[in-house]
Amino acid sequence: MPLNMHRHVKSDGRELLLYSDMPLDVSVGVEIASERGSASHMRWHPLRGEWVVYAAARQARTFLPQANDCPLCPARDGHVSEIPFSNYDIAVFENRFPAFSADAALEQTLPGENVKVATGRCEVLVYSSDHNASIGQLSNAHLSRLIAVWGERVSALRIMGYPCVLPFENRGEEIGVTLHHPHGQIYAFSFVPAQLQRAAEAQASVPVIAQLLETLDRELLVRDESDALSFVPPFAMHPYEIWLAPRRRVASPELLNDMEREALAVTLGDAVRRLDKLFGKPMPYILTVQTAPRGFEDTFHMMVEIKPFLRDVNKLKYLAGVEQGAGVFLVDVLPEQAAQKLRAVL
Amino acid sequence: MPLNMHRHVKSDGRELLLYSDMPLDVSVGVEIASERGSASHMRWHPLRGEWVVYAAARQARTFLPQANDCPLCPARDGHVSEIPFSNYDIAVFENRFPAFSADAALEQTLPGENVKVATGRCEVLVYSSDHNASIGQLSNAHLSRLIAVWGERVSALRIMGYPCVLPFENRGEEIGVTLHHPHGQIYAFSFVPAQLQRAAEAQASVPVIAQLLETLDRELLVRDESDALSFVPPFAMHPYEIWLAPRRRVASPELLNDMEREALAVTLGDAVRRLDKLFGKPMPYILTVQTAPRGFEDTFHMMVEIKPFLRDVNKLKYLAGVEQGAGVFLVDVLPEQAAQKLRAVL
Repeated sequence: MPLNMHRHVKSDGRELLLYSDMPLDVSVGVEIASERGSASHMRWHPLRGEWVVYAAARQARTFLPQANDCPLCPARDGHVSEIPFSNYDIAVFENRFPAFSADAALEQTLPGENVKVATGRCEVLVYSSDHNASIGQLSNAHLSRLIAVWGERVSALRIMGYPCVLPFENRGEEIGVTLHHPHGQIYAFSFVPAQLQRAAEAQASVPVIAQLLETLDRELLVRDESDALSFVPPFAMHPYEIWLAPRRRVASPELLNDMEREALAVTLGDAVRRLDKLFGKPMPYILTVQTAPRGFEDTFHMMVEIKPFLRDVNKLKYLAGVEQGAGVFLVDVLPEQAAQKLRAVL
Repeated sequence: MPLNMHRHVKSDGRELLLYSDMPLDVSVGVEIASERGSASHMRWHPLRGEWVVYAAARQARTFLPQANDCPLCPARDGHVSEIPFSNYDIAVFENRFPAFSADAALEQTLPGENVKVATGRCEVLVYSSDHNASIGQLSNAHLSRLIAVWGERVSALRIMGYPCVLPFENRGEEIGVTLHHPHGQIYAFSFVPAQLQRAAEAQASVPVIAQLLETLDRELLVRDESDALSFVPPFAMHPYEIWLAPRRRVASPELLNDMEREALAVTLGDAVRRLDKLFGKPMPYILTVQTAPRGFEDTFHMMVEIKPFLRDVNKLKYLAGVEQGAGVFLVDVLPEQAAQKLRAVL
């Protein structure tokens, strides 16, 4: 599938990319411009072995605007938007409140060897022009394009020199989402976060995902689309957690062939519909697209992890003392039972 | 300070320990008895390198009971309580809904080398008989006893053979606390969680805490009690995070001398009062007492970490895509600014 992309540079210099087959009109809407805030910096946490990012400018970020003021809706007369076009399929633009930015590199050197400017790039990925859509409601063709956009961005950002790119989505006010319009984000890091490095190293020594797919207990399966599968991992950290993976090992979504991308798209929409049906309301979740960090292209098996945050109709999964303080997750739903419920719900 | 302890075995066999100087009456209250549920088990997460614990019995745990029905209040006529005494200072008992238990070891062997029974011990630590108290309201003498109880439990559980003991407190309905009566918990693990192992290894190669205390910027200090300090770590992962540490390196709270324990008690009450004052309401937080895992007794510097969950009056700190998906924490308050506000607030 060729991916038609239109590149627009916003008045403040931020890049806006529109992925669409439709012709694009220049809109009459008012384009949101950012005042470039102070750059973020990172400090090394010696006990966790991770960088912590200080992004004071993010305190001011947009917080639950009315639908009328949605900065992700297509522009119309007088409406202030991030996307000054009257329609689009999928849009990507540089975050106005970035935790990481390319500008950061230009800043003065910070004191101390455990402090670094937070170089990187943060993008917003708008799934659809429809304010009320969600992954579960988009067509398989649209989701296939979304996966292609993930791949295009991972590839483009890796070419820009970032060694690790993480597309993700936080969904649901319950977990702090501040804009309702369906969207995800893409973070391009200037370093490989230790947690992702460890996961990639584990895959490099044992082909964990390939083995999982080969030996997967039918009890854990959610949907088998032949070229792609969805399943509850036998070591799920969240109740009703679902992983989606292409059967063939590819390191990143841009390497999927059309059949694989379409199969993965089917499992993606299907997974979100099942999660939404489970408790009769939109499931809050964290979705991450795991792609190979630099150096792991030959061993990494890309996949999509969806970690839901409801463990029952009105019970949120909290990450508290033991999860945060010790890294040990407590789960009160067995993976096999979760998969059984997820299969039965649709 | 000698710690008077009274040991009681509940009707279901669970241990209840009362730490008090006052004489104890047997109460007329009805003692809560547990039906022993199915034991938990653990599965190895190959990409995270951590055990995940499946504790299905915990689905049934008590959820926000009315104050009248509080199972942690002293027993009175007809009242059903975990603590069948008419008064107490500090109480510890085995959790009725344990994620880990000693019984688990007696269960049949589970299949697969990546699965284990979840041996361990989970205790509830009740801070006070006063339903409405909190660490910020307890006297320094009471807090000093609380720290002594932490030490007594860490020591006793290590002697029972558990290589790693974590006292902690989840505070606030905002982060899922299901009982309001002021209490913490103690988990004794049959293994050293990877995150705690890494932190202990980091301390074994560089004395991170001692160096922090020696070179601490006054800007980061919250309170200096000479034998113990409270401060915002320069690499804080949460806004307004506070660490408390004795100046002298000891591996665990039972090794503190009276002066050190009393100094630490002062910083503890002080820290919680400052956090509560910051936004004019009780601060939800995770408090963990970091003690040496087995093998690190000679290098580990014990400390107390308090990770608050409000970043502004009505804004919760959420752990979403980047924190959970990559292990990279984003913080929008600089440690130096946080410490300045915490110093100024009282």
